[in-house]
Amino acid sequence: MAIAYPHFFGPKKVDPSLVVSSTATQSSPPPVILSQDELKKVAAYKAVEFVESGMVVGLGTGSTAKHAVDKIAELLHSGKLKNIVGIPTSKITHEQAVSLGIPLSDLNAHPIVDLAIDGADEVDPQMNLVKGRGGSLLREKMVEAATKKFIVIVDESKLVNHLGGSGLAMPVEIVPFCWEFTLKRLEMLFIEAGCVGKLRKGGDSEEPYVTDNGNYIIDLYFKKDMGDLKDASDAILRLAGVVEHGMFIDMATTVIVAGKLGVSVTNKE
Amino acid sequence: MAIAYPHFFGPKKVDPSLVVSSTATQSSPPPVILSQDELKKVAAYKAVEFVESGMVVGLGTGSTAKHAVDKIAELLHSGKLKNIVGIPTSKITHEQAVSLGIPLSDLNAHPIVDLAIDGADEVDPQMNLVKGRGGSLLREKMVEAATKKFIVIVDESKLVNHLGGSGLAMPVEIVPFCWEFTLKRLEMLFIEAGCVGKLRKGGDSEEPYVTDNGNYIIDLYFKKDMGDLKDASDAILRLAGVVEHGMFIDMATTVIVAGKLGVSVTNKE
Repeated sequence: MAIAYPHFFGPKKVDPSLVVSSTATQSSPPPVILSQDELKKVAAYKAVEFVESGMVVGLGTGSTAKHAVDKIAELLHSGKLKNIVGIPTSKITHEQAVSLGIPLSDLNAHPIVDLAIDGADEVDPQMNLVKGRGGSLLREKMVEAATKKFIVIVDESKLVNHLGGSGLAMPVEIVPFCWEFTLKRLEMLFIEAGCVGKLRKGGDSEEPYVTDNGNYIIDLYFKKDMGDLKDASDAILRLAGVVEHGMFIDMATTVIVAGKLGVSVTNKE
Repeated sequence: MAIAYPHFFGPKKVDPSLVVSSTATQSSPPPVILSQDELKKVAAYKAVEFVESGMVVGLGTGSTAKHAVDKIAELLHSGKLKNIVGIPTSKITHEQAVSLGIPLSDLNAHPIVDLAIDGADEVDPQMNLVKGRGGSLLREKMVEAATKKFIVIVDESKLVNHLGGSGLAMPVEIVPFCWEFTLKRLEMLFIEAGCVGKLRKGGDSEEPYVTDNGNYIIDLYFKKDMGDLKDASDAILRLAGVVEHGMFIDMATTVIVAGKLGVSVTNKE
């Protein structure tokens, strides 16, 4: 059986019982080409297999996590899962879970979360993540920092050699007060990495996008590797005006990747 | 002439021309006992002597800084100062400055501030500060981090051997979302220092106090020294949900102390 993607994550522990491959062999039927959304669903459903009755479960935000929330609701309604308490990571996930009848609570009542399932915008070989292109990075980070087991679900397009490497945004949540000033200070921090920052706009509007917490988002784009991630994280957080950033360093405990090579489940050592 | 307070700040540079003493000598008149507010005014007026025409000046917040803002307005109106641009550190200082006719701008237009004058709630012998008991710590920190010269003005009651040593609050600005959870995580960070956190209430109200940025304040009280301040700062800032804290480490360039021994001006080496 082909091992899908674990090579990407280097020496980490791969559970062979959890590796599924759709790679064609001579005796196999021809591979089915799945759409990106179908791949997301495959990863999400695999993650939900880790959910057990009685668990407090962090419910992620975004197009991949949405499939996991749907699946959890389905298993609750069929009776295959019982006594789940969901902790939503955004207002939109809260609404989705309410509409699906998943019992919900929050970190005040449940400061320890058993397991969280969420997507990511980038995953590097050390299982560090960029999250928050959907705008919910702060609540996601609060829930996922309180989680014993954090399962990240992505399709293979999210794998990068280093964070920022996709050329897409690394978001930073900031207070609206003097945001142009904060944007410039963020760019200056990473001037050697060719960093350019842009204020996120809301949809088709020219108005700034406003987070669930009433803040703005600066999207940072890097031409080069930003260097040591923990140093970068601390430098960003030390800027007065910054609330949080979208790098999730050393937080994921399991990464599930769905792609042309099948589904891989890689656990942190 | 007696040297007032510089002994407190250890080996730092004291400008003897700026040291004023009210200590009585045999030939002096008996010392005048000044009220705490009068001491604040003495420190504030001394600081305003550093302001020169044409400067961009950070205008602090609180009962001591208020005297400095009043004095700057007086000098502008008398023509002794010209072409000052003020950068207020809070909505309340903005209103005060507008009412006094001081021309104002912000960090977007003036990302480099020549000089800022502000009070502090605690000053340690290394010129590190606790600020923000007035609730404006974030905007104050943004302005004062952008300042070439940051003059801190206090009466002698604010001098402490270590930050938190007054037994009064060290404030932390946090997002309202799941604030009880963030409060517990803050207490856990400093469990060995006997840290207790309390949500700040608004005036006589039982409602939470809300900052200029729409956030809450957790006041931390320490029974013991919290240890290395830079480590403590990074640990607080790494908590998702924290926006900023009230420790101003390595930021003050001059501390002016007014008290029974007179006024001292101590410059950072």
